Amino acid sequence: MLRSIAPNMTAKTKVMAGVLLIGDELLSGRTQDTNLAEIAKFLAPLGVQIGEARILADDAAIIRDTVKSFSERFDYVFTTGGIGPTHDDITADCIAAAFDLGISEREDALVELRKRYEESELNTARRRMARIPDGASLIDNPVSQAPGFQTRNVFTLAGVPQIMRGMLADITHRIEGGAEVFQITVSVSNVGEGDAAARLAEIESVHPGVSIGSYPWFNDELRGVNFVARGTDEKQLGAVKQDIDAMVADLIST
Amino acid sequence: MLRSIAPNMTAKTKVMAGVLLIGDELLSGRTQDTNLAEIAKFLAPLGVQIGEARILADDAAIIRDTVKSFSERFDYVFTTGGIGPTHDDITADCIAAAFDLGISEREDALVELRKRYEESELNTARRRMARIPDGASLIDNPVSQAPGFQTRNVFTLAGVPQIMRGMLADITHRIEGGAEVFQITVSVSNVGEGDAAARLAEIESVHPGVSIGSYPWFNDELRGVNFVARGTDEKQLGAVKQDIDAMVADLIST
Repeated sequence: MLRSIAPNMTAKTKVMAGVLLIGDELLSGRTQDTNLAEIAKFLAPLGVQIGEARILADDAAIIRDTVKSFSERFDYVFTTGGIGPTHDDITADCIAAAFDLGISEREDALVELRKRYEESELNTARRRMARIPDGASLIDNPVSQAPGFQTRNVFTLAGVPQIMRGMLADITHRIEGGAEVFQITVSVSNVGEGDAAARLAEIESVHPGVSIGSYPWFNDELRGVNFVARGTDEKQLGAVKQDIDAMVADLIST
Repeated sequence: MLRSIAPNMTAKTKVMAGVLLIGDELLSGRTQDTNLAEIAKFLAPLGVQIGEARILADDAAIIRDTVKSFSERFDYVFTTGGIGPTHDDITADCIAAAFDLGISEREDALVELRKRYEESELNTARRRMARIPDGASLIDNPVSQAPGFQTRNVFTLAGVPQIMRGMLADITHRIEGGAEVFQITVSVSNVGEGDAAARLAEIESVHPGVSIGSYPWFNDELRGVNFVARGTDEKQLGAVKQDIDAMVADLIST
């Protein structure tokens, strides 16, 4: 059932996030990122959309400058990767540098690490994972304990997908979202994208606030198109779906 | 067998690429990008490394400005997505705008489209796919004919992975690469990343030009680490692999 927004309800503003996926391994093709889609699906029901994502090499100056500019440009910023115990884990230092903050080993972070490691295992490398920018609050890591952290509007998460996902649970309550974005998809085979284009643009133009995309797909046997419409007004999206269904019916019958 | 570089051979400079993945569907989590890794694997044997990738929304000003800055910053730029027949396919216009070039329907591109479409199917929407920035050379599309194009050092490719992959074949001969980057991986289970960190940093420091990363992995039964070293000198990489193997042997025996 479609809910309509009550007329006296103030429309919330658009809330936007930027995502920084950090690590040479993502750029060399060794590792396939899946964190971006995971974060997008986590944020959608909270009413936060991702405006841009960047995949950055392990380069301290670039990470620092990008964190700074993204923090100013977006309501929220998510970083993934580079908070482990090895020499190429430089994200925490870059975040501190981005905001001119000090960084040091923190007792609250060590408490978390001690849940996992014996004192004898807490060598210099592992203690690096307790180095947190001044004033940041920890983000709980239920998978492997070494915490993420929040610095102003920047959430710094692990790169390993299972750990990253576990950390998201401790972020929900920190987000002040906007209007939730809903999505409808009409999938159809044996219809050409080019045959639908003109009418699709027309449907979009009479439904301001709804964005419509069309995405061709292939498999060994079939080809077709997914028509996807996104917007914050579920009722309007329902009308858009009716228009797309009618367009598809016409295309198939000709 | 490891080949050593002949001493009288001039070391080629580092050749770097930037990648722009274009489309709202990549940021909403609807579509999982795989083109970045595909391009990285295509470029590695040509001696080109990816320095940064960005995932951009369907926003003309941002695409235009980013193409411009990436074109100046990198030796080569690859864009994927946004060259189909629908109203949200704006990449060609953005590329033209980035370089202050005109853009118009080109006869050579129409020739390609006519291999696929009857004249009656070549409606306004499909003819949009023949709009090419002035002076750009076409990139062959053996999958669905609508061509990509090269504008200076920027290669504009389709977003659909099968089509994007098909277009890469017509790019190889246009690339002047640098020294090929080789990679070795040592995968080990039941070794903690934190136990290896100090020695790993040491190995990296005595092998300048080699970068070493360590990437923890999990599955339902096991956990472990992949140690990955990358560099242009295969002989040196062989020595690094011996050092990592020795480190692993020590860690397992303790």
